[in-house]
Amino acid sequence: MKAIIVYSGGLDSTVLLHHLFSGGHELAALSVNYGQRHSRELEYAADNCAKLGIEHRMADLSHLVDLLGGSSLTDPGIDVPEGHYEQDTMKQTVVPNRNMIFLSLAAAWAISKKADCVAYAAHSGDHAIYPDCRDSFTQALDAAIRLADWHEVGLHRPFVGLTKGDIVKRGAELGVDFTQTWSCYQGGKEHCGRCGTCIERREAFYLAQVEDPTAYASEAPSLDTMIANDWRL
Amino acid sequence: MKAIIVYSGGLDSTVLLHHLFSGGHELAALSVNYGQRHSRELEYAADNCAKLGIEHRMADLSHLVDLLGGSSLTDPGIDVPEGHYEQDTMKQTVVPNRNMIFLSLAAAWAISKKADCVAYAAHSGDHAIYPDCRDSFTQALDAAIRLADWHEVGLHRPFVGLTKGDIVKRGAELGVDFTQTWSCYQGGKEHCGRCGTCIERREAFYLAQVEDPTAYASEAPSLDTMIANDWRL
Repeated sequence: MKAIIVYSGGLDSTVLLHHLFSGGHELAALSVNYGQRHSRELEYAADNCAKLGIEHRMADLSHLVDLLGGSSLTDPGIDVPEGHYEQDTMKQTVVPNRNMIFLSLAAAWAISKKADCVAYAAHSGDHAIYPDCRDSFTQALDAAIRLADWHEVGLHRPFVGLTKGDIVKRGAELGVDFTQTWSCYQGGKEHCGRCGTCIERREAFYLAQVEDPTAYASEAPSLDTMIANDWRL
Repeated sequence: MKAIIVYSGGLDSTVLLHHLFSGGHELAALSVNYGQRHSRELEYAADNCAKLGIEHRMADLSHLVDLLGGSSLTDPGIDVPEGHYEQDTMKQTVVPNRNMIFLSLAAAWAISKKADCVAYAAHSGDHAIYPDCRDSFTQALDAAIRLADWHEVGLHRPFVGLTKGDIVKRGAELGVDFTQTWSCYQGGKEHCGRCGTCIERREAFYLAQVEDPTAYASEAPSLDTMIANDWRL
């Protein structure tokens, strides 16, 4: 199989990169700079591809950051919410139409390269606050992408039935170096350990019973505290 | 109605801009630089928006031009075919997944702005060689865009039942200055008058019985020659 992978440099897509690579598939990886506050995950994306010898390209949409406004991921005027994803404030982390933009660029590249599919790391824990993670959205977009060219390209979501904990397990099996992945929504040098994605990340390692090698900021609540508080701050 | 218009600076979308503007709709316009050989139409797009006081933004995807490779519109190694659209060589002008990329960016902006729709100048003459002009594609993409956010945005194609000749007529009614629109696929100072879009443009004015104010290159075949040859070179 020949695939274009939408690759953020985060935990899920890094495990997907290794998963597909270990399956012997021919890969090229697309990352997107949409003006996110930090570029750490994009640096990891480039480095991880270079290590595996996978062609990697960056789509720079940072000049459109204000068109994608209203999200705390891109707008410095909005605080990154802390706490669990279920909390309403996490709606502020929605970047409008992000998945369609990423997937349409990857699909264009897939058509150019005559690849079979666009792969991305959607998983069962993708949250209901993100409308473009819904199955109904994905099905409609898959139909549109298949019709976008005479050369048919489909969406491939091998992790869609897995939890984030399952993905950590799969990554551990594949020997993924998790320290070379980035989740945190804050722009710090280390993972803050307190924002929605940090909590998800920590919980996933805990549930997978895999040791979490991530360096969290010293102010982050301890794992024991998080567990005692049912993963709420 | 509040709309984001996908605006190339070509004839069709310039008439659409005026059509929606004259209807009193609130507009913002998005143009995309995808590495096309010439930037004339993008300059016209900016100028025409400025004249009407319409907010205009440019998405610069020119750094991805090789991802969108294989088209004569972006690849200097491929000649721009001359002659009528029906000819097979015009398949070389397909830019992979162009419509989805443009529409997904415009939809993101529409969601940010809480606009009602994304408008674009699809018309009945859009050619069967462009897979992403098919109705089936548009319907699937419209469904996906409506599901991309809790704030529903739809696709709006007011010209879908019109021919390009009808669009010229509508533009003449609206007093559009057609000299401030660009169609030609070549990168010259004037319209070449010989490439697929130039022939379409000339034919549309002829069928609309509107005088064509476009300055064509002196080497271009005369209108009489084109008519005598049934619009074939």
